[in-house]
Amino acid sequence: MLTDQIQEKIDGKTKPLGSLGRLETLAWQICTVQQTLHPSLNKPHVVVFAGDHGITDAGVSAYPQEVTYQMVMNFLNGGAAINVFCRQNDLDIKIVDAGVKFDFEQHSALINAKIAKGTQSFLTGDAMSAEQLADCFDEGQTIVEQVHASGCNVIGFGEMGIGNTSAAAMIMSALCDMPLENCIGRGTGLSDEQLKSKIETLKKAQEFHGELIEPEEILKVYGGFEIAQMCSAMLTAAEKNMLILVDGFIASSAYLVASFIDPSIKLNSIFCHLSNEHGHKFLLDYLEAEPLLQLDMRLGEGTGCAVAYPIVKSAVAFMNEMADFDGAGISKNE
Amino acid sequence: MLTDQIQEKIDGKTKPLGSLGRLETLAWQICTVQQTLHPSLNKPHVVVFAGDHGITDAGVSAYPQEVTYQMVMNFLNGGAAINVFCRQNDLDIKIVDAGVKFDFEQHSALINAKIAKGTQSFLTGDAMSAEQLADCFDEGQTIVEQVHASGCNVIGFGEMGIGNTSAAAMIMSALCDMPLENCIGRGTGLSDEQLKSKIETLKKAQEFHGELIEPEEILKVYGGFEIAQMCSAMLTAAEKNMLILVDGFIASSAYLVASFIDPSIKLNSIFCHLSNEHGHKFLLDYLEAEPLLQLDMRLGEGTGCAVAYPIVKSAVAFMNEMADFDGAGISKNE
Repeated sequence: MLTDQIQEKIDGKTKPLGSLGRLETLAWQICTVQQTLHPSLNKPHVVVFAGDHGITDAGVSAYPQEVTYQMVMNFLNGGAAINVFCRQNDLDIKIVDAGVKFDFEQHSALINAKIAKGTQSFLTGDAMSAEQLADCFDEGQTIVEQVHASGCNVIGFGEMGIGNTSAAAMIMSALCDMPLENCIGRGTGLSDEQLKSKIETLKKAQEFHGELIEPEEILKVYGGFEIAQMCSAMLTAAEKNMLILVDGFIASSAYLVASFIDPSIKLNSIFCHLSNEHGHKFLLDYLEAEPLLQLDMRLGEGTGCAVAYPIVKSAVAFMNEMADFDGAGISKNE
Repeated sequence: MLTDQIQEKIDGKTKPLGSLGRLETLAWQICTVQQTLHPSLNKPHVVVFAGDHGITDAGVSAYPQEVTYQMVMNFLNGGAAINVFCRQNDLDIKIVDAGVKFDFEQHSALINAKIAKGTQSFLTGDAMSAEQLADCFDEGQTIVEQVHASGCNVIGFGEMGIGNTSAAAMIMSALCDMPLENCIGRGTGLSDEQLKSKIETLKKAQEFHGELIEPEEILKVYGGFEIAQMCSAMLTAAEKNMLILVDGFIASSAYLVASFIDPSIKLNSIFCHLSNEHGHKFLLDYLEAEPLLQLDMRLGEGTGCAVAYPIVKSAVAFMNEMADFDGAGISKNE
């Protein structure tokens, strides 16, 4: 069995058994996904999906809605955190307008996948129509197919969308059947009072919609466009047998929906970091996912993927480059 | 005040306040050490000190003593984990023979700082003489002065030495006044029974030597040569105002001694990872040190430094390259 051979190769490296810890389980996972003893990471990408949310009108975010398009401009100008970390670690970056409330000019780094100028508020209706959800799935799929066709086999997903911790919290609460209090956090930095108000607002929305069960229905009701496209993108990446780098709270909510649709996605997925956003720890525990990093980050944009990526490279590097006991003439333990 | 300006610069970056978590405190630390708003990491190095330990005769390790020199050969041949991770992350590596029980041929990557062919067993006497300890301090200082003279301002320290978790545990127990049970772990992989025997052996040594207080005396009594040279190397790095990357359990025990000699070393020190070796968590808690990584690694060699180094680079990169709110025309929180 190849899986046994993978473990044998790991155990034969010149180090005490198990002493590279998570790097070893990561190497095992990557080799198993790629069905090889010689794993490789090719043309790594981070794709950042941006979208606006109708729910922002209810005052659930510390920042005004226009920050979504302003940050997209910042991405295109190369000045955001995700640009810096992608440059540092040699990751290609693509920005997707999944549904920002702004008319962008054409830009070589911008993919136009705009569904509409922001979702509807889920306080009094569905965030999007069934047709819009289907369009999101088409766009997410096409984007990953194109990235895959360029030779990429490892892809991280980031997001930008003022208000999207609210959408993610609603999705999480519904799919995990977990109290909203566990799912709602301060987002970009709410005060105690603002947080209380966010919880009250989202509870009203939950009462309005009642119990929802189907993952696609939940996505349609709570949105956003960027989360739905990311969900589809992750499913496509799994179909193409790529490695999926899962970022923080929002990206994990998209992953959650994807994992309900296709549980086998887990083998391909690497959970890059534990976000400081309140709900993320509960969500990762629910998913039985072990994050690589715990650096109290809570920025989104895919920054957790980009900062953690060198660790993924370390796992592949030791597998391919380290000497083994026999070759190096080193005594084993007694 | 520069420290205020550093914080202002961090807070002015296009991200919610504090949302880069540990990367922000790390950037603050590096800027404060370097007294600049524009930090830099120049010619990063990992120096690996190797030495043998008389205590291995008492059967405290899962591996035979010859593995120390065999692993040094592996380092020189570029096949060990530390070689792989240094290559991956563009760190220069130097190997130091601090006191290995073997005659090495000359090698461009090997620094000969041999004090003796292994320490004496601390079961029935001191690991080294006062003169040998002084020699260790001279060698450690000279090595770092040379690395510093080459233009390096960030240096990690690793080690190799069968038996050195025993020496480190004795040092920790004495200096932290902590029960040996908190300090002793499985090292390279002891069974339950072997671990029990290791604890009994080390307790006997502790009874033999009685209470020790002075950090230099503790180093002399328990060794090893690689730990003493590393301690001196860290103190010299701090004097030269370099950034010090602290690795796992053994390196932290050397740091512990150094911090007793010069408490101000802490500002320059970055704790790279939490080792899976039992005593390390207690030691980091004692030092009030927050490690960057928690990947269940326990290999030594400086591997924690090398794997964590890209995160240190991320902290510097965001500080130097990210846009600020004013420059990018982005609205602040309401």
